[in-house]
Amino acid sequence: MGHRHRLLDTSAPARLAAPDEGIGRDELALATRNHGLPLEALRHDLTPPGLHYVLTHYDIPYVPDDTPWRLTLGGHVRRPLRLDLADLRAFPQVTTRVTLECAGNGRALLTPRPVSQPWLVEAVGTAEWTGVPLRLLLAEAGVGTDAVDVVFTGADHGVERGVQQDYRRALPVEVATGDDPEVLVAYAMNGAPLPPQHGRPLRLVVPGWYGMAHVKWLRDIAVAEEPFRGFQQAVAYRLRQEPEDEGEPVTRIAPRALLVPPGFPDFMSRTRVVRPGPVPLEGRAWSGGAPVTRVEVSTDAGRSWQEAGLDPDGGHRWAWRRWRHSWTALPGEYVLSARATDAEGRTQPLEPRWNRGGFANNLVQRVPVLCLDAQTAAPGADTHPGSTRADSGR
Amino acid sequence: MGHRHRLLDTSAPARLAAPDEGIGRDELALATRNHGLPLEALRHDLTPPGLHYVLTHYDIPYVPDDTPWRLTLGGHVRRPLRLDLADLRAFPQVTTRVTLECAGNGRALLTPRPVSQPWLVEAVGTAEWTGVPLRLLLAEAGVGTDAVDVVFTGADHGVERGVQQDYRRALPVEVATGDDPEVLVAYAMNGAPLPPQHGRPLRLVVPGWYGMAHVKWLRDIAVAEEPFRGFQQAVAYRLRQEPEDEGEPVTRIAPRALLVPPGFPDFMSRTRVVRPGPVPLEGRAWSGGAPVTRVEVSTDAGRSWQEAGLDPDGGHRWAWRRWRHSWTALPGEYVLSARATDAEGRTQPLEPRWNRGGFANNLVQRVPVLCLDAQTAAPGADTHPGSTRADSGR
Repeated sequence: MGHRHRLLDTSAPARLAAPDEGIGRDELALATRNHGLPLEALRHDLTPPGLHYVLTHYDIPYVPDDTPWRLTLGGHVRRPLRLDLADLRAFPQVTTRVTLECAGNGRALLTPRPVSQPWLVEAVGTAEWTGVPLRLLLAEAGVGTDAVDVVFTGADHGVERGVQQDYRRALPVEVATGDDPEVLVAYAMNGAPLPPQHGRPLRLVVPGWYGMAHVKWLRDIAVAEEPFRGFQQAVAYRLRQEPEDEGEPVTRIAPRALLVPPGFPDFMSRTRVVRPGPVPLEGRAWSGGAPVTRVEVSTDAGRSWQEAGLDPDGGHRWAWRRWRHSWTALPGEYVLSARATDAEGRTQPLEPRWNRGGFANNLVQRVPVLCLDAQTAAPGADTHPGSTRADSGR
Repeated sequence: MGHRHRLLDTSAPARLAAPDEGIGRDELALATRNHGLPLEALRHDLTPPGLHYVLTHYDIPYVPDDTPWRLTLGGHVRRPLRLDLADLRAFPQVTTRVTLECAGNGRALLTPRPVSQPWLVEAVGTAEWTGVPLRLLLAEAGVGTDAVDVVFTGADHGVERGVQQDYRRALPVEVATGDDPEVLVAYAMNGAPLPPQHGRPLRLVVPGWYGMAHVKWLRDIAVAEEPFRGFQQAVAYRLRQEPEDEGEPVTRIAPRALLVPPGFPDFMSRTRVVRPGPVPLEGRAWSGGAPVTRVEVSTDAGRSWQEAGLDPDGGHRWAWRRWRHSWTALPGEYVLSARATDAEGRTQPLEPRWNRGGFANNLVQRVPVLCLDAQTAAPGADTHPGSTRADSGR
């Protein structure tokens, strides 16, 4: 045949977009498959099904309900385990409320833009995950004394930059066997079996860590005596300035606050419209490193900041915290922002911190708002069900 | 203040993208909020929650569970109605399986590209909707003899091209009072209360019509003696070649077949990889005009076509039909397509039919596939859980 047909024919190396390059067809195909949290859904303590962000590297595996599922736990352990769902349910059960964020959140706001899933700020969601503490499974198997990493393999399979792989990530053994955070092998989300796109029937949940650690469709756990060097650990998900850098691994979630865009939107620009007067602002804030202790709000594009009120955390250390702020709007144009700070002093930058993978960009959100003049702001003037006058204008 | 702050400051007129213009920030913001069906989810008869396409013009209204909801039915009727959810549940209940597709599906494949929600092919989903036949509610109210249109108003509010509006659409009175299709005021999706993004607590379901007719967060129904000229009826959702054309209204869903992309994907390009040998192909096909009677498959980018097998429709006239085809792959590069034809002879074009709004583009899908050489295709060669060799390569 002459020409050979190899995996590299399907894959391109990582690249950065040219300075004025719009989002390409490949990025768009990812953006229409995966999805973010519509920001108005920040109002819900627990994100309703279908509004939580989803990022799938390859395909969502098709697992019909009557398919038996086995989780194997092996490698450097004394007693390898082979567990079905009933076996897992026989272990003690823990439920934890967790805010989960994609490590690539904010990527599409970087210049130059790393070409990958083009998130703006919306790759987040909060759910209650129920499952078995991973440390109990590892204790049952008996982890070897020289263990370094614990490697998790999902059933999702694909190619990335020429490398064929099952999705696979590791945690340091001290994290995997620790209880702060309590890592879960989860079989329920918000009290129901996991939806297909969230890992049905099993996924890892690592509170406080970015989404890449929460391996979905979990089918194997392997204890290793060498540091894991798989693609998603050593090639992807590292903070690098240059391609040849070894880079720092992406781990815990950087602090972020988001606000519920007030008023109502323009369809295309998503600019918000409010009327003069009191405009209650609210949102959520979270950090994977330490609890959020402070949220500030700016209505002048970050030039000045005011302290927002923080709701109690309700004992949910790993979930976002609600915050509120009162704003009195006058006619004009505004850019609203919120900024979170955590107990260890980490906060959010006003200028993005760039890296080649576009990870952990917790740049403060910018929400453009137009406050109408009072005389044009009468509610319902052009929205009465019986009237079509304003509707016919352009 | 000098400058006035008016709605037009938030909105731009409709426009077409320049020839080489990539997807812009505004289109991306819509693509990350709204989402399509990941094509592997075509395997499910009923789309699991969260995988069904969603398109929201403005914000998803926030309706806490304990909020009373009233549906008013008025205009030119003998007895205006005011109904709560319990009232609606006292009417006869109908459940219908419906494939719902966005009128803008396929828009981002057009040249020049109309700038709006940038769908490729994935804006579809199938659910079972339960509710009251609309004709029973209209009969209870008593429709005036000169009625022309029935106007439906949702609780979602925003601006579009300078026009502030509640989302509002009409059906001709003969469609609204007819039973083929049986239009529903639906309060359940797949046996559960509607999720927020699908119209909680009430939405219209118009089997066979594109999504813009299925008004969500339904709060008012008004019988009108004049044709409805609202924005979403007379300005948006019309098939036009030039801005000044009156245009044909967008109504029923054009035929379309989609295939489940076989094998596994490359993360970034979404190109599919298969191994030599038999590759079962399957997918779904639907049409809002008449039942699908034929599906053809091409493995050579549309140069030749073969008849696929159609599963029985199971009595679900308004839902997609499954089809299957056997393909034996040899090493090489392919473009797979499927094409649906309905009982009235409508089919799908190989070249897009352009219109300014980017509506009803049912161009055949193209799925690039690479079939590997046999010697590089041994399953698992580079994917064994214990091996990290291939993972470390670049």
